Amino acid sequence: MKYLLLNGAIVGHKTRHLLDGFHEQLKSHLTEADSSQIIDLKDQDMVFSDGRHWADYSGDTLNVLQAIMAADVIILSTPTYQASLPAPLKNIFDLLPEAAFYHKTVGFLVTAGSEKHYLVMAQQLIPILDFMKANVLTHYVFAHDADFNGSQLVSDDIEMRLAQFAEEVTGHAEAYQHLLVAQDAKYDF
Amino acid sequence: MKYLLLNGAIVGHKTRHLLDGFHEQLKSHLTEADSSQIIDLKDQDMVFSDGRHWADYSGDTLNVLQAIMAADVIILSTPTYQASLPAPLKNIFDLLPEAAFYHKTVGFLVTAGSEKHYLVMAQQLIPILDFMKANVLTHYVFAHDADFNGSQLVSDDIEMRLAQFAEEVTGHAEAYQHLLVAQDAKYDF
Amino acid sequence: MKYLLLNGAIVGHKTRHLLDGFHEQLKSHLTEADSSQIIDLKDQDMVFSDGRHWADYSGDTLNVLQAIMAADVIILSTPTYQASLPAPLKNIFDLLPEAAFYHKTVGFLVTAGSEKHYLVMAQQLIPILDFMKANVLTHYVFAHDADFNGSQLVSDDIEMRLAQFAEEVTGHAEAYQHLLVAQDAKYDF
Amino acid sequence: MKYLLLNGAIVGHKTRHLLDGFHEQLKSHLTEADSSQIIDLKDQDMVFSDGRHWADYSGDTLNVLQAIMAADVIILSTPTYQASLPAPLKNIFDLLPEAAFYHKTVGFLVTAGSEKHYLVMAQQLIPILDFMKANVLTHYVFAHDADFNGSQLVSDDIEMRLAQFAEEVTGHAEAYQHLLVAQDAKYDF
Repeated sequence: MKYLLLNGAIVGHKTRHLLDGFHEQLKSHLTEADSSQIIDLKDQDMVFSDGRHWADYSGDTLNVLQAIMAADVIILSTPTYQASLPAPLKNIFDLLPEAAFYHKTVGFLVTAGSEKHYLVMAQQLIPILDFMKANVLTHYVFAHDADFNGSQLVSDDIEMRLAQFAEEVTGHAEAYQHLLVAQDAKYDF
Repeated sequence: MKYLLLNGAIVGHKTRHLLDGFHEQLKSHLTEADSSQIIDLKDQDMVFSDGRHWADYSGDTLNVLQAIMAADVIILSTPTYQASLPAPLKNIFDLLPEAAFYHKTVGFLVTAGSEKHYLVMAQQLIPILDFMKANVLTHYVFAHDADFNGSQLVSDDIEMRLAQFAEEVTGHAEAYQHLLVAQDAKYDF
Repeated sequence: MKYLLLNGAIVGHKTRHLLDGFHEQLKSHLTEADSSQIIDLKDQDMVFSDGRHWADYSGDTLNVLQAIMAADVIILSTPTYQASLPAPLKNIFDLLPEAAFYHKTVGFLVTAGSEKHYLVMAQQLIPILDFMKANVLTHYVFAHDADFNGSQLVSDDIEMRLAQFAEEVTGHAEAYQHLLVAQDAKYDF
Repeated sequence: MKYLLLNGAIVGHKTRHLLDGFHEQLKSHLTEADSSQIIDLKDQDMVFSDGRHWADYSGDTLNVLQAIMAADVIILSTPTYQASLPAPLKNIFDLLPEAAFYHKTVGFLVTAGSEKHYLVMAQQLIPILDFMKANVLTHYVFAHDADFNGSQLVSDDIEMRLAQFAEEVTGHAEAYQHLLVAQDAKYDF
């Protein structure tokens, strides 16, 4: 399976470090048949959605959308800005077609300033992923300012959660793939 | 696997009819190793949670809680009252321990007066199920007043959705069971 | 104006102590024309809503509903159970008519085990109050286990928040009453 | 008071037509001391938030932020994209400081493809506005595709709702201003 790890922040380094930590853990679960890739929105020159079909964009915007459409599993790493997801990440959803996540497993990692914002992404992101037809992972990894020294992750708890989450993501993604194959076998003959 | 179908309304018949329609569809997916059971809160004399351990209740309250704790897959059928779930269903959650749905697949069917309340249960119920450690099915079947004649379901669309949902529920429940077995095999030796 | 303070927990003492703390602060803002009353659901023998018109209940159930319907301002004090409001409080809403809070100002105080549940009631309660036509106070007072010693409130921060909130509640309630009077004057002649 | 009407869509015309309809109704409630202004994000060349202080942006971005910071009352008109607010509108919030809406009354108008998305903005937008310290109007005007012919509003119901909402907005905004003046009088002498 193709794993795509998307950093949704264009400012700061915490979400990227959290995503890198997850990537390290993920690698130990991947087989030769799997691949993984990080896309960092900070490195991409994206335009706002103007209502075009996704395949009609060009440059970085098209490259990012193609990578998303080609992935089997997507893990988003998102900061919490104004009690919500950041505009550059929301823009990714706006650029994609409604059923973009059909037959894809999608989960997320979150950073926030305070524990009080633990539930923001569950509330703001799960409905979007569900609407876009993802196989949504409703559990997630949450790290707040006290888990970082500067932007370096310094929490053993979060490291352990990342390890658990890598196992959970790969387990669920594989179980879902078996389900899709079984459904195909039932209808395609 | 043990499938438990729980009707969360103690007034009216719509949610029960929706649940019966789902049950019909579910049966065609069950094997000899599976069982299914409907519990209707209308037939149960439940007390409000008073903070006791769940196993210390008695009578109908204990019977219902035991059936829930013993189930592998739980499908709730809930009406929408005051833009939220009804108190008798919320009471079930209050009576149960925090991790009651650990290693259980849980989904839901919804009735509401109007399409405008399509998102109520996604918003109100998914966070509860997620908190209680369920393998949450984020898709659901939604029927509103125009789908019923009196309390009889008269919508072909909803019948088709129930059939799809029965397939989705059993598919996801089986995939999740495989995942749990695989995880056990990894750690238990 | 008639202020009704409703304790929504039937187990434990934290929400009641929080409500008592608010009541102390509220009193200093009330004039001779105002009254305030606490109703504690722990002292009331309530039945589950069975779909009857609210005025057709009897006993404690009717008394509580009458007090709510007669109030101008309602402050709910609610614990967080299973990432949601407790069933006895949800039952109050189920017992009331849809527009029960029309022309009433309604706010809330929250207790929870952890700061991670800071947003639960905003997510679960505000949509209910809005649906029931309240003039909703979207700000609230939140206290978690670290703010209590046993069930006694021991946080200066929370005491200060209660004082602020009492001022906010009375300010908003009075401003809303002026608005209602001005609207009446416009249409009733 | 300064009323700012902000169109949050950069594609399509429905939200703008809804906002224009609201503006017509609003005008009849304004006095000589009031002013109203529409800003349409479609006409503005905005950059993504890069973490700068809001006053350090330039061009259209700075102009829009200044108009928002100077307003007393803000009405947002937003489409529903992927079960959420569009990225260009989310970007406005990201560009602003956390307490940008302190002492401002903020409400919203919504368009969506279907009635099933009636609750999206209540769920996604109210928590953001509340976090940013707005005096949030929790009621709103909702129009869906059946209320438009092309992008022209053709629903008498919506026209009536806009008239009601203009009265509600101005009533609440004035009541809130009285409250702020009364609070100032109490503390500033």
